[in-house]
Amino acid sequence: MSRPEHSDLRKATASAPVLQVREKTGKIVEDALVVEEPLEIRLGGRAFSVTMRTPGQDYDLVRGLLFTEGIIRSKSEIGAIQYCHDESSDTGESNIINVHLAGVEVADRLWQRNLMAGSSCGLCGKATIEALSEAASPVRWSARVRGSTLSQLPGKLRSAQVVFERTGGLHAAGIFDTNGEALAICEDIGRHNATDKAIGRGLDEGWIPANEPLVLFVSGRASFEIVQKALMAQMGFVASVSAASHLAVELAEQNNIVLIGFLRDSAMTVYTLSNRVVLD
Amino acid sequence: MSRPEHSDLRKATASAPVLQVREKTGKIVEDALVVEEPLEIRLGGRAFSVTMRTPGQDYDLVRGLLFTEGIIRSKSEIGAIQYCHDESSDTGESNIINVHLAGVEVADRLWQRNLMAGSSCGLCGKATIEALSEAASPVRWSARVRGSTLSQLPGKLRSAQVVFERTGGLHAAGIFDTNGEALAICEDIGRHNATDKAIGRGLDEGWIPANEPLVLFVSGRASFEIVQKALMAQMGFVASVSAASHLAVELAEQNNIVLIGFLRDSAMTVYTLSNRVVLD
Repeated sequence: MSRPEHSDLRKATASAPVLQVREKTGKIVEDALVVEEPLEIRLGGRAFSVTMRTPGQDYDLVRGLLFTEGIIRSKSEIGAIQYCHDESSDTGESNIINVHLAGVEVADRLWQRNLMAGSSCGLCGKATIEALSEAASPVRWSARVRGSTLSQLPGKLRSAQVVFERTGGLHAAGIFDTNGEALAICEDIGRHNATDKAIGRGLDEGWIPANEPLVLFVSGRASFEIVQKALMAQMGFVASVSAASHLAVELAEQNNIVLIGFLRDSAMTVYTLSNRVVLD
Repeated sequence: MSRPEHSDLRKATASAPVLQVREKTGKIVEDALVVEEPLEIRLGGRAFSVTMRTPGQDYDLVRGLLFTEGIIRSKSEIGAIQYCHDESSDTGESNIINVHLAGVEVADRLWQRNLMAGSSCGLCGKATIEALSEAASPVRWSARVRGSTLSQLPGKLRSAQVVFERTGGLHAAGIFDTNGEALAICEDIGRHNATDKAIGRGLDEGWIPANEPLVLFVSGRASFEIVQKALMAQMGFVASVSAASHLAVELAEQNNIVLIGFLRDSAMTVYTLSNRVVLD
């Protein structure tokens, strides 16, 4: 059976000091974060796809993605697969993999994949964040929020989830003010969509881009893309039910966003700017 | 505050008979499923993006997506937003929305979005499944699996999750034989990536496409795309910790895949082909 190797484990986790809150008491601890980095897949040297992934078993990921997308039908259609040398990488590891296909023609329409900007200048978390900084300025709010207000959000989100109630199958995203008042709560099978629905509602009603410090709260994990959406909407706080990735933490840190994870009952983990969460 | 309206709730859920198993006893009940349908966004009549979403608050989703992707900076840049008439839709509802932008130039690179095949011939769950049937045949296995074997999978997956253990932040996907023996268990911040890693490992080792009836087990939800990956790899069973979407159920049904959700301890929900899960 294949399972993550020791070297994969090292690449897959990072470490950072966080504020761990239990029952109104906080202490700074060193926490393990899951690593999230972009991976660019090239076919015969031509950029084909960029996906955010956790490093480790990258060749398996590339093989599997090409197979499940129908690009290849068997292993024999991969002639060679290798990392490209990436001078911009601190670690000497590369986030670019080039695949030589053997006798496979890739249809034109399949080249129309989700390619992120800035991938020509080295591809890593840092470059990804830098590319974003052209599109958005750091959040200008420096307000604080009470821990007790944050602790109420999971209950408020759940009680507004009418579809989840019936199906048990949906993600939700809510936007709240710093008093815990809900401005929009939206559901979708994807938490990215649920977040976009809530932001789109605010755009329509005129309170997005945020004209006061707002809290985005999502079910599930806080990934890079969730923090990116909060940044575009100029929200000062992002909270999630589950863990944050290391790239989400870096993006929040550099853009004046308070990032909170594992928000359940009276417990939470504050990843960034923990002095702006008031424990009372 | 905006929350899903009654009409949204109707669009967001579907109903289907499922086998609900509790402690080795199964009964057929009518269950509510979350709806998953593709949505195509057009800008000035030109296809821009297709996303799988739960219907409801679609205009908010489109506004939010265009905003968080940096296409528009304010509401005023949307001149008009409306559903396209879609004759292929059973319900009279459309899964295509056209947006007229006011004074916005969309950069060429932003048109390179993830566009699915077949979107020109009407866009709905049915068309999405039909487009797939060109790429893959129904699974040929008709083996059965013991419910008690399935019940062991969550524990096996968790005990192999070395990164989750440290971070609490990862999804996992495992591929097992029908005796519950693990062939590959992979982790990633995204469950699609974790699934692709496991399939890619099998492709490399020669047991994918499946040369025996295999079980794909994923943490999180069973969406259309997860079942699609199992179909491409010819796996006969898909199980997940959480709910399945209605489109995942339809795809599994039409391709001879046994679909199981809410797999926890000795409980599970069998969505399709429930006679192939043996309760002993």
